[in-house]
Amino acid sequence: MVELKAEEIFKEFRQHSVAEFFKKNRQMLGYSGMTRSLVTIVHEYVTNSLDACEEAGILPDIEVRITEAGENRYRVMVSDNGPGIPKNYIGKVLATILAGTKFHRYMQQRGQQGIGGSGCTLFSQITTGKPIAATSMTGTGKGYTCTISLDTVHNKPVIGDYKELDGLKRGLTIEGEFAEIKYENSDHGVYEYLRRTALSNPHAQIKFTDPTGQEYAFLRAIEAMPLRPKAIKPHPLGLTVNDLIDFAQVSESRKLSSFMTDTFSRFSQDKVNEIAGIATSVNMGKAPKDITWDDAEALIKAFKSVKWIAPDATSVIPIGEEQVKIAMKNILNPEFMNVVERKPKVFRGGVPFIVEAAVAYGGNAGKKTDEGYEGNLLRFANRVPLLFDSGTCAITAASKNMDWKRYNIDIEAQPISIFVNVSSVYIPYSGVGKEAISQESEVVDEIKLAIMEAARGVQRYISGKLQVSHETSKYKTIIRYTEQLSKDLSDLTGEDREAIDRSLEKLVAKHYPKAYVGEEEEAIEKSEDTSGESDEGGEN
Amino acid sequence: MVELKAEEIFKEFRQHSVAEFFKKNRQMLGYSGMTRSLVTIVHEYVTNSLDACEEAGILPDIEVRITEAGENRYRVMVSDNGPGIPKNYIGKVLATILAGTKFHRYMQQRGQQGIGGSGCTLFSQITTGKPIAATSMTGTGKGYTCTISLDTVHNKPVIGDYKELDGLKRGLTIEGEFAEIKYENSDHGVYEYLRRTALSNPHAQIKFTDPTGQEYAFLRAIEAMPLRPKAIKPHPLGLTVNDLIDFAQVSESRKLSSFMTDTFSRFSQDKVNEIAGIATSVNMGKAPKDITWDDAEALIKAFKSVKWIAPDATSVIPIGEEQVKIAMKNILNPEFMNVVERKPKVFRGGVPFIVEAAVAYGGNAGKKTDEGYEGNLLRFANRVPLLFDSGTCAITAASKNMDWKRYNIDIEAQPISIFVNVSSVYIPYSGVGKEAISQESEVVDEIKLAIMEAARGVQRYISGKLQVSHETSKYKTIIRYTEQLSKDLSDLTGEDREAIDRSLEKLVAKHYPKAYVGEEEEAIEKSEDTSGESDEGGEN
Repeated sequence: MVELKAEEIFKEFRQHSVAEFFKKNRQMLGYSGMTRSLVTIVHEYVTNSLDACEEAGILPDIEVRITEAGENRYRVMVSDNGPGIPKNYIGKVLATILAGTKFHRYMQQRGQQGIGGSGCTLFSQITTGKPIAATSMTGTGKGYTCTISLDTVHNKPVIGDYKELDGLKRGLTIEGEFAEIKYENSDHGVYEYLRRTALSNPHAQIKFTDPTGQEYAFLRAIEAMPLRPKAIKPHPLGLTVNDLIDFAQVSESRKLSSFMTDTFSRFSQDKVNEIAGIATSVNMGKAPKDITWDDAEALIKAFKSVKWIAPDATSVIPIGEEQVKIAMKNILNPEFMNVVERKPKVFRGGVPFIVEAAVAYGGNAGKKTDEGYEGNLLRFANRVPLLFDSGTCAITAASKNMDWKRYNIDIEAQPISIFVNVSSVYIPYSGVGKEAISQESEVVDEIKLAIMEAARGVQRYISGKLQVSHETSKYKTIIRYTEQLSKDLSDLTGEDREAIDRSLEKLVAKHYPKAYVGEEEEAIEKSEDTSGESDEGGEN
Repeated sequence: MVELKAEEIFKEFRQHSVAEFFKKNRQMLGYSGMTRSLVTIVHEYVTNSLDACEEAGILPDIEVRITEAGENRYRVMVSDNGPGIPKNYIGKVLATILAGTKFHRYMQQRGQQGIGGSGCTLFSQITTGKPIAATSMTGTGKGYTCTISLDTVHNKPVIGDYKELDGLKRGLTIEGEFAEIKYENSDHGVYEYLRRTALSNPHAQIKFTDPTGQEYAFLRAIEAMPLRPKAIKPHPLGLTVNDLIDFAQVSESRKLSSFMTDTFSRFSQDKVNEIAGIATSVNMGKAPKDITWDDAEALIKAFKSVKWIAPDATSVIPIGEEQVKIAMKNILNPEFMNVVERKPKVFRGGVPFIVEAAVAYGGNAGKKTDEGYEGNLLRFANRVPLLFDSGTCAITAASKNMDWKRYNIDIEAQPISIFVNVSSVYIPYSGVGKEAISQESEVVDEIKLAIMEAARGVQRYISGKLQVSHETSKYKTIIRYTEQLSKDLSDLTGEDREAIDRSLEKLVAKHYPKAYVGEEEEAIEKSEDTSGESDEGGEN
């Protein structure tokens, strides 16, 4: 074999745009498999709509319509009542990969990458050759409509058929035609995606028309906007050395000391003094731009050696215990549930996050199989349902690591659903398609603690139930003998048989009090339990 | 709550470089968890070295050295005997994301994205602030050394300390310092990664020095280069409508008809005529640049309706049955194995791929646990071991879908290892980190067939073994009675007891022939079985 020289090998060297990369590797954006590809499209548009409405302070009204347009080919329309998109941004939002408002902001939102919307345009283009149509109305009488496609070589938008519109409607409507997709009514389909979106967004109203024309409405369960997440200053414990240098480079503060109090949260003048006393090699009067790696490393080391107030919880907005309860009741209507909202925690040293978990028992909880039940794990990140890549997800890992037996719970034999929502300014997704949370150990551990706490409440309920059924069966067995016994005693002694029977029954009931409940009492007990106090969750 | 207007929301709109994206989302490149991050670094450099050596026609000699440099901080050095990198390309290869020689070529290689090497530079930079050092020698007396870092805002290299070198050595040496990583001796560590790399690359020699100074050598098992994969023309069945248009846009052919015979494989003039007879709406005399979406759609539809010769198998180079056997024997030394190389198949209509599978029994196969064994699934793509994200991988899905019981195989109770290598011009990885193969249904199905075929050979071996042990136990039980019986018969009849014993033994042996083998015969039988004929695999 002839050896080739490096020059010959490298003559074919080229550089490619990020749009070309994803055109070639569309499965990395979630476009793998026909059912999943359709869910990805709906997911990207609905997520953008929810974010836009919430950012504008509008209760979301979203409509999704899927119509067949050939074999494995559909038109997908998503419209919202949000603020719309200014005309000079529409091409960037829907046809420029890695452009957006959210990437650099330290604020909790569903989208964070500036990829999703443009990914849909790309997918429409490579499967049907057609552009996307968008109509944006501001609600003040003005708006426009146009088509959008993506020049993949340059990662730039191509706008066509632009037309100004009049009208008082408000919101964005996007419609596109896509091929190599399939509508399927399954656990991984669009209906289930929207159902779970409604579960985690009780303030949103979602209407859906499936390809057969069937209409569904997930009604708004709560008439209040979720708290608005604030863009916050980063917490000192969440910084890497590299982050600190990056912040310093763009800082307008005069000195390192004021740079730190200006840029980071929980950083008082006292803290500056404390840090200066530890990182003695660093000159705090230095201009931030002149920071060296060694300076930054010494500072980060010092940050980690002192005590800090926890990150500002107002930056992370969970769904909320009450809202989770209402939504779970609406959708699963369980016999019993326990909802837990944990305190804010940090990962990678300082990115704040909050885990909510619920374990529901009975009703429509659990997934029935031929042999019993499959534990129905409902995974969410910043209220967005995660339907795919379960195997790599931190939530799945945490649930699998649980010793469910310790909680008297047998996921395969009992009707159990487990709900987990992770909220954060930055969710460490494992892939560009954002279908799973990377298994950072702090995140997995915290999710596990949340599920354990939720499971404990359910354990008490199930144990009670088991004890009752155990006592009831003993009670019934013994009562069978008392009948015979009272008859024999009556024959022997001549005493009244019913009187003997009643006193025997009382005797037995005294020994098995749980089995001896009238039906009415039982019903009351049940309805009280259904409220599932999470406050109790921490005990036991 | 005050409603915000779109203009206010979009004032923070920005566009970001792909380097900034991966800086923020490093877990998507495989940098999640400290052990995995270190494996990712070694994986990227070793993969690049193997590709470079093979492309230059050189038997790879690779050295990997990891030394501790602080808490969770190491220096990693990888050097090869390859062709080196010309100085005007080194910055592009190691510090420009999405630049490379391989992205647009239709040719089987390990790397295909132009991300890995630059990802390492990025990771070194964000964890230690240090550049990577590279030394490239051509073997003809010339070379150079320099440092490289990545300007993430512009996705451009920054070269430092450039120095020309003299010397006759040939190859590339890369050394970098990385933090937030950990060396671990586990199934997911560097040693195991290199061991599996040696298993799937018996033509390579790999030396490894771990952080304790311990040296390991995986010696070359085969002194021959693997067949060189050819850059091939795409197969008509592998094209999407969009692909056809892209090829037509850059074609220099004069007409659509000649464009098709020039650009695609298996496309004769006869085929052009056949296609023209089906796609009657398309003017075959048209210039390729003028092709419309409708033309292309009609052509692709016609392509799918006629018969084609299968894709050129020379474009896909599997490891090879013999080489897999040698390597498996070296590393697992199983009691029995069955190796299967399947014929080339296509996915997405026409991307050719080949699956190799082996099932090994006994020896060092299987992974011992407290309760028995865990099926040890060894996953490879283009000879590259896949250690992570097993849950989302097509290979895992195929193995899990198997009804192992039908093959008398109990993965949890028997010492079994399953080896699968998927070779293709284009591996549909599920993520940028390339640790799992996306679950395209054709790929999953073909992998399953390959494992089934390999399992059948092992089934026969295990069944034989079970039958032998069953008969042996019956034989032994009955023989115990013959001793008593011959004594009694001898007492009764006065005949010679040993003579009676021998004839009884013969009688029993006639009924249980498999149990009646001398130890020598047994040994021969075993060694014959060990060759594991895969030719037989298809029967039964």
